Amino acid sequence: MSVPEHVISMDETLELAERAHAGKSQLSLAYRLIQNTGVQKRHTVRPVAETLRHPGFEERNRIYELESKKRTPEVIERALANANLATREIDAIIYVSCTGFLMPSLTAWLINTMGFRTDTRQIPIAQLGCAAGGAAINRAHDFCVAHPESNVLIVSCELCSLCYQPDDDDVGSLLSDGLFGDAVAAAVVRGSGGSGVALERNSSYLIPDTEDWISYDVRDTGFHFRLDRRVPGTMEPLAPVLNEFAAGHGWDVRNLDFYIIHAGGPRILDDLGEFLDVDRKMFRHSWATLVDYGNIASAVVLDALRRLFEEDMPSEGASGMIAGFGPGITAEMAVGRWSVDSSEISG
Amino acid sequence: MSVPEHVISMDETLELAERAHAGKSQLSLAYRLIQNTGVQKRHTVRPVAETLRHPGFEERNRIYELESKKRTPEVIERALANANLATREIDAIIYVSCTGFLMPSLTAWLINTMGFRTDTRQIPIAQLGCAAGGAAINRAHDFCVAHPESNVLIVSCELCSLCYQPDDDDVGSLLSDGLFGDAVAAAVVRGSGGSGVALERNSSYLIPDTEDWISYDVRDTGFHFRLDRRVPGTMEPLAPVLNEFAAGHGWDVRNLDFYIIHAGGPRILDDLGEFLDVDRKMFRHSWATLVDYGNIASAVVLDALRRLFEEDMPSEGASGMIAGFGPGITAEMAVGRWSVDSSEISG
Repeated sequence: MSVPEHVISMDETLELAERAHAGKSQLSLAYRLIQNTGVQKRHTVRPVAETLRHPGFEERNRIYELESKKRTPEVIERALANANLATREIDAIIYVSCTGFLMPSLTAWLINTMGFRTDTRQIPIAQLGCAAGGAAINRAHDFCVAHPESNVLIVSCELCSLCYQPDDDDVGSLLSDGLFGDAVAAAVVRGSGGSGVALERNSSYLIPDTEDWISYDVRDTGFHFRLDRRVPGTMEPLAPVLNEFAAGHGWDVRNLDFYIIHAGGPRILDDLGEFLDVDRKMFRHSWATLVDYGNIASAVVLDALRRLFEEDMPSEGASGMIAGFGPGITAEMAVGRWSVDSSEISG
Repeated sequence: MSVPEHVISMDETLELAERAHAGKSQLSLAYRLIQNTGVQKRHTVRPVAETLRHPGFEERNRIYELESKKRTPEVIERALANANLATREIDAIIYVSCTGFLMPSLTAWLINTMGFRTDTRQIPIAQLGCAAGGAAINRAHDFCVAHPESNVLIVSCELCSLCYQPDDDDVGSLLSDGLFGDAVAAAVVRGSGGSGVALERNSSYLIPDTEDWISYDVRDTGFHFRLDRRVPGTMEPLAPVLNEFAAGHGWDVRNLDFYIIHAGGPRILDDLGEFLDVDRKMFRHSWATLVDYGNIASAVVLDALRRLFEEDMPSEGASGMIAGFGPGITAEMAVGRWSVDSSEISG
């Protein structure tokens, strides 16, 4: 996990909003939306002044390529070291990123540059947005079941600042401008051994007829993020789904030992706690990610997992849930037990 | 499997090249490249005159969304009917397409529109290009092993004509302009039952340091397909990989009963036959796809499979190989046996 060196605080975001929307009716709305995010700072791959300019889709994507190549290897090396694995022990790379588009995916460059085996499976996913972190964990779990004793590397590279669209001033854009941040994260799902969450079951859920609630408008100026005002309210339909998913595994969703939840925004975390009847502090890792880095898309669940590792390693056999949310609107869910000897996720 | 209603013959392609490159030095080269493809006709979602104009990336992507929504449901219905499955029996949808970009992926729309279950897993892959057909089959196989008795729907939607770039006249572009065609294909990989290839093993291979041989240059005008002149020669390094993959399964690659090979171009099929010591007629389904439709990217292997079903159903237990090639340069390979009662692919 790493965040870039350029930092923008909430105060600076508010100042920029003041300048951008000076004299316009949306200023007070923008102000309120930014303050409500609770995001204290965010990190960006380029300095703020450069981030605010739009040099065109082509140049943005060129920067994406440059920055992703610059920033992923170090994060991957650390994830491999934490999992006590060499590059040659990795059997598949799942690369998730919705903030730039390369073909071939960065997987080919990573294999060539970092010495992964030539028969490493490449699974690049660009269209699941924030849900891709959970999806990557679930597909890695599936891969390890299908190919016993294999190891899967997950790489999430979300350079959200490269999708900033200066001319968009609808409510969703005003909110996003204060919410999203950049981050690169990596984790390893091991077929056996290691320490972390031993994944036991996964599932996916699409909230019917919400496919245009979170979406990209693909334009000559690149990806324009569209966020419907109903999105913050989606935990009401999703909480029963998480409840039922846990129950299907014989577990009570209210009484798990840890929760790794996508920090889409403060209302997502607040509502989910309320609807699931789970204390707010149980989502503390997600809250910490949100406050420190903003919504870092598919990297949120990986960063929250890192905090779980670093701050309060659960005891052997502790039960937990991982849930990512994103466009579709899709939830990607997993349950597992903390394991020190035979775990599946290290990061 | 379906191809759109607009048709362009090789003769028409040659005439268009004559007009496009009139008086320029590349005309004779374009002529030779087009004739060498052996592609007799191709199908496009829009009339030729409209295809040749470039209305901008935004409009192209809008057309992609429109046409993919118009054309995928019917093809999916046919694949489900052939597999004797209802939409509600599908557990995952793998959607592969590199010729347009939607977020959320078309999977969300398909689930909402066609009545798939809300817990259907969505696996959209946009960055494996022509290799995505083989990758989809392999990931579907993995999913069925990880989740026994499940069924995976594969959808390939390749509207290559929407990536035509009128101003590109390098060798790779001149070749591509005469080679690629549009198609939509679907297939079902069943966890058990059905008729088709019972998948036994899969593998992937990246030719080292060729990541820029097949690539997209992402520009304000959209995806510019870049094809290195060394690509047609890649069967020399890949043939031994296919050989070894078959040998690892205890099979002799020279003596399989059927071959479903990506028809990247005539040289790919010619060379592979030669380097593997396999008779040209064993690749007849791939040749037929190439001659009738051109290179239809990730849909080639699915169309060649359809021809295998329709023209000469192999006998029970017949051995075969599926191989897709694409950017990376990546090969996605599978081996399996024909099965009528307990098969895994129906299309």
